Amino acid sequence: MQFHFDGFKVGDPDIAPPTAAGLARAGAHALPAICDVLIVGCGPAGLTLAAQLAAFPDIHAVIVDQRPGPLQVGQADGLMCRTLEMMQAFGIREKIEREAYGINEVAFWKPDPATPRRITRQGRIDDVADDLSECPHVILNQARVQDRYLELMANSANRMVPHYGRRFVSFVRGPESDSHPVTVTVETTRADGTTATETIKTRYLVGCDGARSGVRQAMGRVLRGDSANQAWGVMDILAVTSFPDVRVKCLIQSADEGSIVLIPREGGFMFRVYVELDKLNKDERVASRNLTIEQLIAAAQRIFHPYTLDVREVAWWSVYEIGQRLSDKFDDVDADGALPRVFIAGDACHTHSPKAGQGMNVSMQDTFNLGWKLAAVLRGQSPPHLLDTYSAERQAIAKGLIDFDREWASMLATPVKSADNPNGIEPAEVQRYFIKQGEYTAGTSTHYKAGLLTGPATHQALAKGLIVGKRFHSAPVVRLADALPMQLGWSAKADGRWRLYLFADPTVAGKLSPRMAALSAYLDSAGSPVRRALRPDQDRDAVIDVRAVFQDYHRDLSIDAMPPLLVPSKGRHGLTDYEKVFTSDKRGPASIDIFDKRAIDRRQGCIVVVRPDQYVAHILPLDAHADLAAFFAPILQAV
Amino acid sequence: MQFHFDGFKVGDPDIAPPTAAGLARAGAHALPAICDVLIVGCGPAGLTLAAQLAAFPDIHAVIVDQRPGPLQVGQADGLMCRTLEMMQAFGIREKIEREAYGINEVAFWKPDPATPRRITRQGRIDDVADDLSECPHVILNQARVQDRYLELMANSANRMVPHYGRRFVSFVRGPESDSHPVTVTVETTRADGTTATETIKTRYLVGCDGARSGVRQAMGRVLRGDSANQAWGVMDILAVTSFPDVRVKCLIQSADEGSIVLIPREGGFMFRVYVELDKLNKDERVASRNLTIEQLIAAAQRIFHPYTLDVREVAWWSVYEIGQRLSDKFDDVDADGALPRVFIAGDACHTHSPKAGQGMNVSMQDTFNLGWKLAAVLRGQSPPHLLDTYSAERQAIAKGLIDFDREWASMLATPVKSADNPNGIEPAEVQRYFIKQGEYTAGTSTHYKAGLLTGPATHQALAKGLIVGKRFHSAPVVRLADALPMQLGWSAKADGRWRLYLFADPTVAGKLSPRMAALSAYLDSAGSPVRRALRPDQDRDAVIDVRAVFQDYHRDLSIDAMPPLLVPSKGRHGLTDYEKVFTSDKRGPASIDIFDKRAIDRRQGCIVVVRPDQYVAHILPLDAHADLAAFFAPILQAV
Repeated sequence: MQFHFDGFKVGDPDIAPPTAAGLARAGAHALPAICDVLIVGCGPAGLTLAAQLAAFPDIHAVIVDQRPGPLQVGQADGLMCRTLEMMQAFGIREKIEREAYGINEVAFWKPDPATPRRITRQGRIDDVADDLSECPHVILNQARVQDRYLELMANSANRMVPHYGRRFVSFVRGPESDSHPVTVTVETTRADGTTATETIKTRYLVGCDGARSGVRQAMGRVLRGDSANQAWGVMDILAVTSFPDVRVKCLIQSADEGSIVLIPREGGFMFRVYVELDKLNKDERVASRNLTIEQLIAAAQRIFHPYTLDVREVAWWSVYEIGQRLSDKFDDVDADGALPRVFIAGDACHTHSPKAGQGMNVSMQDTFNLGWKLAAVLRGQSPPHLLDTYSAERQAIAKGLIDFDREWASMLATPVKSADNPNGIEPAEVQRYFIKQGEYTAGTSTHYKAGLLTGPATHQALAKGLIVGKRFHSAPVVRLADALPMQLGWSAKADGRWRLYLFADPTVAGKLSPRMAALSAYLDSAGSPVRRALRPDQDRDAVIDVRAVFQDYHRDLSIDAMPPLLVPSKGRHGLTDYEKVFTSDKRGPASIDIFDKRAIDRRQGCIVVVRPDQYVAHILPLDAHADLAAFFAPILQAV
Repeated sequence: MQFHFDGFKVGDPDIAPPTAAGLARAGAHALPAICDVLIVGCGPAGLTLAAQLAAFPDIHAVIVDQRPGPLQVGQADGLMCRTLEMMQAFGIREKIEREAYGINEVAFWKPDPATPRRITRQGRIDDVADDLSECPHVILNQARVQDRYLELMANSANRMVPHYGRRFVSFVRGPESDSHPVTVTVETTRADGTTATETIKTRYLVGCDGARSGVRQAMGRVLRGDSANQAWGVMDILAVTSFPDVRVKCLIQSADEGSIVLIPREGGFMFRVYVELDKLNKDERVASRNLTIEQLIAAAQRIFHPYTLDVREVAWWSVYEIGQRLSDKFDDVDADGALPRVFIAGDACHTHSPKAGQGMNVSMQDTFNLGWKLAAVLRGQSPPHLLDTYSAERQAIAKGLIDFDREWASMLATPVKSADNPNGIEPAEVQRYFIKQGEYTAGTSTHYKAGLLTGPATHQALAKGLIVGKRFHSAPVVRLADALPMQLGWSAKADGRWRLYLFADPTVAGKLSPRMAALSAYLDSAGSPVRRALRPDQDRDAVIDVRAVFQDYHRDLSIDAMPPLLVPSKGRHGLTDYEKVFTSDKRGPASIDIFDKRAIDRRQGCIVVVRPDQYVAHILPLDAHADLAAFFAPILQAV
């Protein structure tokens, strides 16, 4: 954590000094008349966006929700590795990890070949492959995840707090000549139960309001897809069982009673059970079956046979039908050239089954993608057409999710192969598919296509382990100034800044190589991408944060060999920022050297350009100054 | 973290459900008429004790402080490895580490032999040796450390909050027939500046009220010792410097201008400088010199030569004289056989120089030692004479601290050896001494002598790396039920419970060995130490928490092979606790196998008895049932 650079402050460094405007608005019950961004829905998508926008004191975001207050009990619970990488940037990873259940292994259970009515263990595998991510796969109640975002918002300079008890009704989009062209009507419920109508004008509207999204409907978009006509139940229970793998994630396939996905939960006692229930008729909704918790428990007990399941308390339960549905676009632009003003994210634009543990994660990644773009445009740093990339990038990801989910859900609902079920599935095949999809379920397979924000893979060979278009895959380094061993990726905060990681070619007698020296001088010069979009009052790393990684043993390199770009003066005191220079971690075995782990060309080095949402945007040679400027030219504009 | 075992609860699991009595008292301005423990002083010693006692809903502890509110700016700042091990047990390590500066290396600077007026780097070493502790050495403002304890107290079942603006005046100890035999008078300052007197009756009084302790004086004890007649200054500054090691801990010895200890601080910009100032006359106090911050800065600049030091802001500064003083006893008992009722801890019983970074740490360890003992006696679990061990154990530790500090402080104040100073010290000798004392400065050298709470080292050979009388040295294990790789020591919470770690001899075909089976059956039987001090309403692990570590690869051992002792039913639902069984971590290189790392006899296994404050009390063979019972007989009593 960095703090005190604008002078010493007492108290909690996670609590930002408040802005006057933020303080004036805090605690107001009524909606303001105008805002920069109106977010509808306090779910994972909405709160990730709110927390991201809360990082910018000069942006006024408002979030409304039709619930009367914060979520108390969970729905989603899985947090993929990729999500924890994002949470590290938000500064909430430690707290999430401490409270969560960590998934380490997955057990596969199948009918006992000798006595098919009994289940038996097929095998046990690692849940996450080595070095897939520096973060674990964990499980935590959605309500507690959301609490962390609410805390970030409350501690931000604008002291942002949701306006609860507000139902989205409609919006009207006015002309672009209007500074706040979207007028939104919401209905608020008073304490006495009567309702009233409020309107608020906003520059941008984002619907994070779930599968039955009012914003989506008001945009005239629809979720298209199909249903597998299969009912499932889910319950969070406190139970006593003789089943030995109850603290491990399990996929259980019985011979004739259907299948179970078992997810142990935080706290050491509770676990979640997804239970396959009845086949539904075409277009039939599960609600029509009036399924009870007793039926869920009985179905689970039949599948668990011969193990006992004695449920002592049910914390939460629900039934649902599986379906995969997708909106064909995630913004309100149909014609080329128009600017998007309204967006949808999360379940509002893609719905699927919960069992792959994807939903909450993909929703949060949607708005992590959108948040920095909105901020860059609102702050004048990027042109408005940057916002076109949101729907383009995320719709493709959602399409992939839908396809994966359809295959996985169908596999889990297929009976086990047997004499009676010759078209069934072999449990070993399910296990193989799970392993094969490891990168997908960890959330690290997202791969954006070449375009405005993703350069061509021309120079991919310079860093074969940092794939252009995929998330920046962290690795260990040592921070030069204080010899701190750390993850390089963890130096990136969710602050809307671009990052350039300069992987250095070899130093010469303890000094920067000529190419590194020339690049540092270029980046620090007036016309460079680093300087171009800076306001005069901003520190030189406010738009693009440049960091360097050297191949030397850290004790062989001195911080005084570094150019001003890498030890910049910052803040009102002009203090030196010492946290931008790293070296390979050579204290341990060679295998944790980042140049080896990420296959970086030691002779040539390279520039790795990373987006504010942690995706690798480009890889360039250290002397490709013009190419770097050309990449940023359509993205960053002089202010 | 374990929660939900008494049923599902929404919200933050770190916030305990409140007790009725705690809620009734919370927020009351007036002191209550009686309490179980009255703590005077909200420093590190007082707050560690308060946080420890707050873990017991049935204990009513009250803490008073003469300050008007919580500390805002720091004094002490160093947190040794051992302190973070303790903080892990309190559940606050992650938050402390995230905010703190981590000390990784120490640089030694000396006069340049060619030009002695200039300083030059002598060498750079690791601050903490490998595997000295699983926790780092960090630096964090005392005020922020105290905030963590205040948070623990506020979130406890009793919602404990300090009573500020209270000055200790006097106490009177009445007869033992009185249930609350100590009557304490405090003076409270009203909002209008007038004062009033309150009295409170308590079972125990603990003075954590600093070097000028009123409690100590009222006990009639004195600090004895001497002064080195040497003034030092200390300042926390935001500054720009050309000195390259400003983000590393440094010991700097100049030729003629004295020495500096430089400690980088949290947040990345601030650093602390201890500067050697004037020699004082015998019995002279530094206050008489009227030293200014300008003089401190000028002295520091002379020592730093040829490097620049441009101070932009001073966050805090002070001057002090070095002295080492100690009370000969830490309780109010002089005659054998009397029971202690009044205790002193921290600076109230030992003062010394700050530069070894020991003060705050040793003070917290004082009351971590006292806290569980007070709780055990107050709850009727242990006889009152347990409390005699506090003064006996901690006075010896303080004596060692004083001796160490005298040597270290004198070394740092000795001029560098030169032609002019033939009796001076070689900088290399300072560096060697620092390395030699590594275990001491990490806080892990504390070694309690054999006695009531520390068994003889008869069976030390069964676990050569877990020294009887020293703190339990954690190592990696895998938790059997969920395959979680973790530190074994981190399973221990600061909850006043004893721990038995059963290091198993080899399993037999996946089943417990005969000796492990017999031991488990014995410990689960009515007369065993585990059962003896239990109240009927308590879970079977409420007094002694038994955990086992097996040598098997975790996938080769099944949780259903475990006896009820190791997978106990708990809470009102009788749910199974799955977190008591571990195996060696065989997933990586052999060197992280706990049996290897702690040199545990694989053929015989052993029982390691660990105190509630994490010290190894005894090591016994797995079949030494009677010896185990004999050890606990004078410590635990039937309730």
